[in-house]
Amino acid sequence: MEQRLIDNINSPKDLKALSVKQLPQVCSELRQMLVDELSRNPGHLASSLGTIELTVALHYVYDLPQDKIVWDVGHQAYAHKILSGRRNRFKTNRMFGGLKPFPSPSESEYDAFTAGHASNSISAGLGMSVAECMLNGDNQHRIVSVIGDGAMSGGLAFEGLNNVSSCHSNMLIILNDNNMSISRSVGGMRTYLTHLQTSKQYNSLRYLGARFLTALGLLTEEKRKRLIRFNNKIKMRLLRQQNMFEGMDIRYFGIIDGHDVQNLVRVLTNIRDMKGPKMMHIRTVKGKGYEPAEKEASIWHAPGMFDTVTGKRIIKKKAGEAPLYQEVFGKTLVELMRSNPKIVGVTPAMPLGCSMDIAMREFPNRCFDVGIAEGHAVTFSAGMAIQGLTPFCNIYSSFLQRAYDNIIHDVAIERLNVVFCIDRAGIVGEDGPTHHGAFDLAYLRPIPNLIISAPYNEQELRNLMYTAQLPDQGPFVIRYPRGRGLESDYEAPFLPVTIGTGRKLRSGNDLAILSLGAIGNFANMAIERWEKSNPGKSIALYDMRFLKPIDETILHNVAENFKNVITLENGTKVGGLGSAVTEFMNNNGYRTKVHIMGLPDAFVEHGAVPLLLRKYGLDADGVIAQIDKILKS
Amino acid sequence: MEQRLIDNINSPKDLKALSVKQLPQVCSELRQMLVDELSRNPGHLASSLGTIELTVALHYVYDLPQDKIVWDVGHQAYAHKILSGRRNRFKTNRMFGGLKPFPSPSESEYDAFTAGHASNSISAGLGMSVAECMLNGDNQHRIVSVIGDGAMSGGLAFEGLNNVSSCHSNMLIILNDNNMSISRSVGGMRTYLTHLQTSKQYNSLRYLGARFLTALGLLTEEKRKRLIRFNNKIKMRLLRQQNMFEGMDIRYFGIIDGHDVQNLVRVLTNIRDMKGPKMMHIRTVKGKGYEPAEKEASIWHAPGMFDTVTGKRIIKKKAGEAPLYQEVFGKTLVELMRSNPKIVGVTPAMPLGCSMDIAMREFPNRCFDVGIAEGHAVTFSAGMAIQGLTPFCNIYSSFLQRAYDNIIHDVAIERLNVVFCIDRAGIVGEDGPTHHGAFDLAYLRPIPNLIISAPYNEQELRNLMYTAQLPDQGPFVIRYPRGRGLESDYEAPFLPVTIGTGRKLRSGNDLAILSLGAIGNFANMAIERWEKSNPGKSIALYDMRFLKPIDETILHNVAENFKNVITLENGTKVGGLGSAVTEFMNNNGYRTKVHIMGLPDAFVEHGAVPLLLRKYGLDADGVIAQIDKILKS
Repeated sequence: MEQRLIDNINSPKDLKALSVKQLPQVCSELRQMLVDELSRNPGHLASSLGTIELTVALHYVYDLPQDKIVWDVGHQAYAHKILSGRRNRFKTNRMFGGLKPFPSPSESEYDAFTAGHASNSISAGLGMSVAECMLNGDNQHRIVSVIGDGAMSGGLAFEGLNNVSSCHSNMLIILNDNNMSISRSVGGMRTYLTHLQTSKQYNSLRYLGARFLTALGLLTEEKRKRLIRFNNKIKMRLLRQQNMFEGMDIRYFGIIDGHDVQNLVRVLTNIRDMKGPKMMHIRTVKGKGYEPAEKEASIWHAPGMFDTVTGKRIIKKKAGEAPLYQEVFGKTLVELMRSNPKIVGVTPAMPLGCSMDIAMREFPNRCFDVGIAEGHAVTFSAGMAIQGLTPFCNIYSSFLQRAYDNIIHDVAIERLNVVFCIDRAGIVGEDGPTHHGAFDLAYLRPIPNLIISAPYNEQELRNLMYTAQLPDQGPFVIRYPRGRGLESDYEAPFLPVTIGTGRKLRSGNDLAILSLGAIGNFANMAIERWEKSNPGKSIALYDMRFLKPIDETILHNVAENFKNVITLENGTKVGGLGSAVTEFMNNNGYRTKVHIMGLPDAFVEHGAVPLLLRKYGLDADGVIAQIDKILKS
Repeated sequence: MEQRLIDNINSPKDLKALSVKQLPQVCSELRQMLVDELSRNPGHLASSLGTIELTVALHYVYDLPQDKIVWDVGHQAYAHKILSGRRNRFKTNRMFGGLKPFPSPSESEYDAFTAGHASNSISAGLGMSVAECMLNGDNQHRIVSVIGDGAMSGGLAFEGLNNVSSCHSNMLIILNDNNMSISRSVGGMRTYLTHLQTSKQYNSLRYLGARFLTALGLLTEEKRKRLIRFNNKIKMRLLRQQNMFEGMDIRYFGIIDGHDVQNLVRVLTNIRDMKGPKMMHIRTVKGKGYEPAEKEASIWHAPGMFDTVTGKRIIKKKAGEAPLYQEVFGKTLVELMRSNPKIVGVTPAMPLGCSMDIAMREFPNRCFDVGIAEGHAVTFSAGMAIQGLTPFCNIYSSFLQRAYDNIIHDVAIERLNVVFCIDRAGIVGEDGPTHHGAFDLAYLRPIPNLIISAPYNEQELRNLMYTAQLPDQGPFVIRYPRGRGLESDYEAPFLPVTIGTGRKLRSGNDLAILSLGAIGNFANMAIERWEKSNPGKSIALYDMRFLKPIDETILHNVAENFKNVITLENGTKVGGLGSAVTEFMNNNGYRTKVHIMGLPDAFVEHGAVPLLLRKYGLDADGVIAQIDKILKS
């Protein structure tokens, strides 16, 4: 096999030693490597394919690691990792103990800032650029923020953009325009960018004008030239108005082909040392260079394993396998929408990820993909609720952190009927610390007027969703994990759930376990195994179902009958179920000791869900170990 | 005294019965009434004066309460309250038990949505408008969202705007442009709006063009007319590009004089029933019609009591009175900036409210007012911190809810040195439930890597700020209340504080109180009084100072020596200090009972701080009552 150029690139310096003419080959090799590696070790394919030329050009023109590239989201940063000394470790990408899923300053000096949640790169980059000017002067280190058009719909991106011209900085913003967020780019900004894009219009107008004047018999050649000069003056003044970014005092360069690496190098070299804030608007194709991904970028955002030759995704679906929780949500939502015309669906850019696409197909006018805009998703839902609709607002746990004030201020104060379906709650796996839904139970519990629930299984999810849409429930949270449940046959008729009640799943004498949500299944398995090897002994299991209001009947009962209880939750130990039960015991004068099982007070790393649950003692083995520790002490 | 027109307006119907020509008189009477009332009973003056004509026009043209006005922030809504049946109760505005400080659906059917935190009116109004179309059809109830140019800097406003054209709605957005947030409007959007404002430019260009062509000898009268027609075609196409809002597919009407009530009525009548989303851009003057307020709108935003004739604000400053906590922050920041060149200040639109204006005067290039943009304030700070600066980011507790994800994702994961100075923590008084800083302790405690502290007094605030800027402290929260402390003479030399340590303030045998922050002073007073009337008995007092890491030495000591402890905090009982101490007792197997004193698990109403502290048992009397309850039981 011929030696690849990239095999000799062990840091950006090695790339910079190549000639510009060799860069297309580097891009092609990177593309091939990404397709090969990701076909075996799944990751974010389409975004990274789209930014290969940009990455190569940035590494070629800028001086990393002194200069900084602030990636947004970081889906697109695989080529960046490979070029910055992580080529050989790339096969460990996203694995437990391997390369992190997104750029992370604690992994590499080439990673400038945490990139996991969209839309933060302008604000962070602006802060870095201002700091550089202040600490090292204008001509030291350069800061480049890359942001996709999808991420531009996030309020934080706008807040950053709005502040760019107010600060002394020389930052460059690269708007990577691929008409896509994870699903598709939505909203007025998209429309605006499309207008910008097609607005070679001014030039066409100038042409039209010249033709018109010629038709009027007004133009001679000499006069035409003077007119063109004059028109350029008009253009200068009009463009300043015409372009929103220039209107915000950011110098604008666009639109540039994002797949012409040599031209990107030329333009970046020209503007690299220009003073003041700048924006370079490039056009790229998500999935570029791999045909199946180009055709269906949403599906190939994170395709899982695939056959590189046939372009077929390898989907291992076992017969009788339980569905994903998100699918239960998606199908149940449609079912409820059929019978209750007041239900609407809201998702911030995750119709596929949360399976709201099912409802969108059947009720396109009653489902709203608002783009990456979690705050708006919640306040918009609140507006619909106050006029009488019942929105099901589906947001991943870690992204809901962005709508915290909206939940408090816009929903909870007036006790509006918004149903929050929180997907990806608890450990999510390979996406790591930025994406684990570790905090929602703790940050939601202090909010007055909220009902907070978590289903033990698929049927419970259905019943909670059914209950949440009954009249006048007020704000109703249903949180459930990433991945599959245990029951393949779950579609029983709906049963209403009494708010604030849990369920006794097992009777027992020696210890009680109180669990919240699907993680309780591990407790059930653990008890089954433990009781077999401890004949004559028994452990009670309660599925609390609601964190708020909590089932005090169960708690009194448990406190009166057990010296020890275990609480088990898929979330931080600080402030969630464990805290609630501990407070109850204390406030009611009980002496029952509470053994809190949950995630540690630390950011949890990336890795497969079972590995992480095992590491933090939250699987069946972990529960057995905890039981033994209590009962043998 | 002549009968006023407004004395007969008991609902919008009465206003609608008047002729358009009488409206200026209504405005003038409202203005007089607002100045009179607010001179005696303080409130938000300047904003409300600026929107009188708009309010009258909206009430005149629209059919309230079926049609809805969604106010943003709600500072401007006083005339709205007076016209919608609350004239006689207006003298109770902002008082305990009286009219609420901001529009509130639970107070009046004329108040469409919760208005306390800026920038939510577009998202909420869009949701309402979409719901109206869905439930009642296109021609039923109309939704108008009013938003100031200051609030337009908030990401939520942009997220809302970005979604307007994607939904089926007929909403009207009124952009109330007064070049002001509370202090001043900042950022690129401001620049953009200013451009819009002055861009009669196109017309001037057209004029220039005609003059140029005439000079070239190209124009005859007949040809000039044809050229104008052609130019109009160009204008149509260019304007679509030129205006960002039109570019986002929102019909734009502006700029309109916001103080010409008859013209406002005319324009609103014209566009009221137009289909699709619309924006009306009006220009108003904050403080309009009251000269002192027009001159210094920032100061007259909420001026306190004043003499209406002289325009002098009545400031009751007692000799020897302790300073406001915010002043201690402001002065200490300057002092620290003088000796540590790495310190920078960041405030989202609150330089006067948090007293960062002091540092801004001395270090204009090291202080950043980022506008109403709390998320950006935090992520921008994080960007500066990762490059080596030490930002002091000052945000009010209830507004920090908007930056929750930024704290977790952009600061805490990488343990960056951002100092969060959280002003207005705990009960804030008359601004009510949207503004009380009730939740910060509870929502911050679950975040890994945070140091969370609260000073007992002014000197402690200084020492904590000093400690926070020492090298490599990581993210450091200092929360302090609205209002004054107790010591007028507090400027002692800085002393470093050991992270995670509290202080024993009083020894005692019968009970221990653990307090966090300035509220501990009430415990101190309470103990002093209680010990006098209970000779021979004594109560220990510990100022915990840090919520995280918590001082476990104190807790072990207390647990070993007391059967009962009281925890006292100015924040919700759910998840804060009380929970932390309870968890500690449980986890360490202690039997000490924790009596948690704090705010209830409910939204606290508005009213003077002492009244609310009394009501919720958090003043010295409340602590004494709790002591008696424990020791006499």
